[in-house]
Amino acid sequence: MESNSSGRRRFLKQAAALAGVAAGAGAGAEWAARGQSAKPEAKPDAQANGSQDHRELLRRGARFSVDHITYYTPLQDYAGFITPAQLHFVQQHSSHFPEIDAREHRLTIHGLVDRPLSFSMDDLKRLPSVSRVHFLECQGNSSAMIHGQGNQNMGLPVQHIWGMTSSSEWTGVPLSVLLNEAGLQKEASWLVYEGADPGKFSHTLPLGKALDDVFVAYGQNGDPLRVEQGYPIRMIVPGWEGPFSVKYLRHIKVADQPYHAWNEAMNHSIPRADVGGKSRWYHFQWATKSVITRPSAGMKLPGRGYVQITGLAWSGGGAISKVEVSTDGGRSWKEAKLQGPVLPKAHTRFTFDWNWNGEEAVLMSRSTDDTGDLQPSRPELYKNWGIPAEDAQKAVRTTHFNAIQPWKIARDGSIQDGMFG
Amino acid sequence: MESNSSGRRRFLKQAAALAGVAAGAGAGAEWAARGQSAKPEAKPDAQANGSQDHRELLRRGARFSVDHITYYTPLQDYAGFITPAQLHFVQQHSSHFPEIDAREHRLTIHGLVDRPLSFSMDDLKRLPSVSRVHFLECQGNSSAMIHGQGNQNMGLPVQHIWGMTSSSEWTGVPLSVLLNEAGLQKEASWLVYEGADPGKFSHTLPLGKALDDVFVAYGQNGDPLRVEQGYPIRMIVPGWEGPFSVKYLRHIKVADQPYHAWNEAMNHSIPRADVGGKSRWYHFQWATKSVITRPSAGMKLPGRGYVQITGLAWSGGGAISKVEVSTDGGRSWKEAKLQGPVLPKAHTRFTFDWNWNGEEAVLMSRSTDDTGDLQPSRPELYKNWGIPAEDAQKAVRTTHFNAIQPWKIARDGSIQDGMFG
Repeated sequence: MESNSSGRRRFLKQAAALAGVAAGAGAGAEWAARGQSAKPEAKPDAQANGSQDHRELLRRGARFSVDHITYYTPLQDYAGFITPAQLHFVQQHSSHFPEIDAREHRLTIHGLVDRPLSFSMDDLKRLPSVSRVHFLECQGNSSAMIHGQGNQNMGLPVQHIWGMTSSSEWTGVPLSVLLNEAGLQKEASWLVYEGADPGKFSHTLPLGKALDDVFVAYGQNGDPLRVEQGYPIRMIVPGWEGPFSVKYLRHIKVADQPYHAWNEAMNHSIPRADVGGKSRWYHFQWATKSVITRPSAGMKLPGRGYVQITGLAWSGGGAISKVEVSTDGGRSWKEAKLQGPVLPKAHTRFTFDWNWNGEEAVLMSRSTDDTGDLQPSRPELYKNWGIPAEDAQKAVRTTHFNAIQPWKIARDGSIQDGMFG
Repeated sequence: MESNSSGRRRFLKQAAALAGVAAGAGAGAEWAARGQSAKPEAKPDAQANGSQDHRELLRRGARFSVDHITYYTPLQDYAGFITPAQLHFVQQHSSHFPEIDAREHRLTIHGLVDRPLSFSMDDLKRLPSVSRVHFLECQGNSSAMIHGQGNQNMGLPVQHIWGMTSSSEWTGVPLSVLLNEAGLQKEASWLVYEGADPGKFSHTLPLGKALDDVFVAYGQNGDPLRVEQGYPIRMIVPGWEGPFSVKYLRHIKVADQPYHAWNEAMNHSIPRADVGGKSRWYHFQWATKSVITRPSAGMKLPGRGYVQITGLAWSGGGAISKVEVSTDGGRSWKEAKLQGPVLPKAHTRFTFDWNWNGEEAVLMSRSTDDTGDLQPSRPELYKNWGIPAEDAQKAVRTTHFNAIQPWKIARDGSIQDGMFG
């Protein structure tokens, strides 16, 4: 009865496998619960009005305010390396989603070009297209501010701390093709571009990046873009902070200098302690990040024994080359398995087999990308940024945050955020 | 005005870009039309009953009969390398989809094992999981039979000839882990397994493959399995013909010999001309295939000029190493670009830039996989199979068909199937 012909490790105790584990909030329970209770999710009709989208996002837990719509990706609840499109995070800087008739929508390119152009959607779809998997991430994702000042937010789950990053297969036309059609003049060195949303969200982009790997996307995960993701077209600026990837894209102006658009100046500048409080204006590329998504805060391990630890790693600088996991709060590290395609500037899924012994533990992951960039601890990050330890208030307000995430496991199996102790 | 600072080729004539191309059935028109007219698609509620699924699939163009539900993937209408889950083909060998309560569902493993086991969904989700991108393909996909005897079906679009293949990121537990939990006895050499659908769809699998890369999937494209894809669990047998990947998986019996289950014997055996009409019982692995999905039959090119040719290539034997495209009916071949991740036993997207000169043309693609297997023409395939040219009737009934697909373009830009001349 106890012979094991293949000799490999078994993961379940026999009794557990025969009887079924006790119902409850196990490491996989949320995933299971999602499968069991999934409500029909409407795909947004391309012609849908804002109120339909509003209702759909409400069902998914989005928050609405006068000038903002926010939805966090439930990182703990999906599998694989591509975020289901309907779970992609939303950070909409206006009170509703614009109702755009794709048959009427035009993308204009003007400024320092030989031939100002106006593209219909049919024009765009006749041009050479590319499909590439890339993450997008809000500048403020996982920031110290979200973890909370004075620990009042320490009960948040991974979705609400880390859920402003998602990864999709985007399809569209390389911006280099469009700029080439228009003909760049020799002074051209920057772009500024604007969306057709109520707030006319605008951003600046250096020409070098624009000609490198940026594209104008009309597809997401094989389907047309979703309304809340910028239907009918959005910019995709791979590896750079989310605000560059302007939705509902309408105008591109080629210029010879950067613009300090409203959101860049008012929302996305960061005080820098080491140079007398000046702002660090342009954060471009995301540094490498990773997070364990299961198990994570708010879950409860059902008992000692096997746990598959899994999470996501990514970098704006390239592909992930390594993810390490610690189960003792960073004293020792072991390499995790990278699973599935490891693509540049895209989420990479990692897994790590662990046996919990029932004692207190602190789980952490840290990523390294193929440029050698290593994800830092919070003290290391502050040190890199020149923020003195005693200047905690400024540190807490810092975005573009990529510190290692600790999850503290108590003896009863409950898990909470260990970022601030 | 005519200077072109980057010197690269332009794709649109200036006038066309400024004025917008004429409306009509261009190469990208279906994609555009889908974006513009997309109806909200319900995700199947995990508890949904058959009639809800029935309605959903009807909207998507599925066909129902007393003992069958069929839906073809609109290959011409999506982008990228992963098929949107709601567009995955369906070949259901029963009149409706079973209503399975995942909380009650069990997977049993019995037969030549040390410890017969019964796994709940919670048990399965606590075990080590993998997520992998793989195509599934119906044994009859693209077969000569579908193209039609005597050309009466030559008007079919790519969706209805080739749409029984789809590619998803599946998530689940390696079958080797489950068999290891149960403990294989030394006589174990085959599996036979059964689904919980009304027809108890069953199949045989050699143990070597089972222990290699087969897994029991509960996730598809990050989400729980869809009802029509086997919710809550299905077998995934990478690279092998579709019937191996049994849906609604319920029982696995470990045996010391193959079983000739009903579908294997009655539906999936093939007469073999070169050995006196005997059946070739077990087709296992798909040979390499490719098809141009845009432009393809039923579309109409709007006029001479740039066309992005795109399609999919795959192989049950490994990864695609090369795709070549011919625009002159196979007289000359040029290499296409492979786009995005090129994964083993998964669809790979290819693209090819072409300028149509307005004359008659025949588009073809042919793939080579990393074992060196080259996709054959139809005469080459019949020759390989030992089917004499004069024995056309038998050839037409042959499944497991992987011949090169010709698309004939007429001077007016209209396109039709050129498989039989």
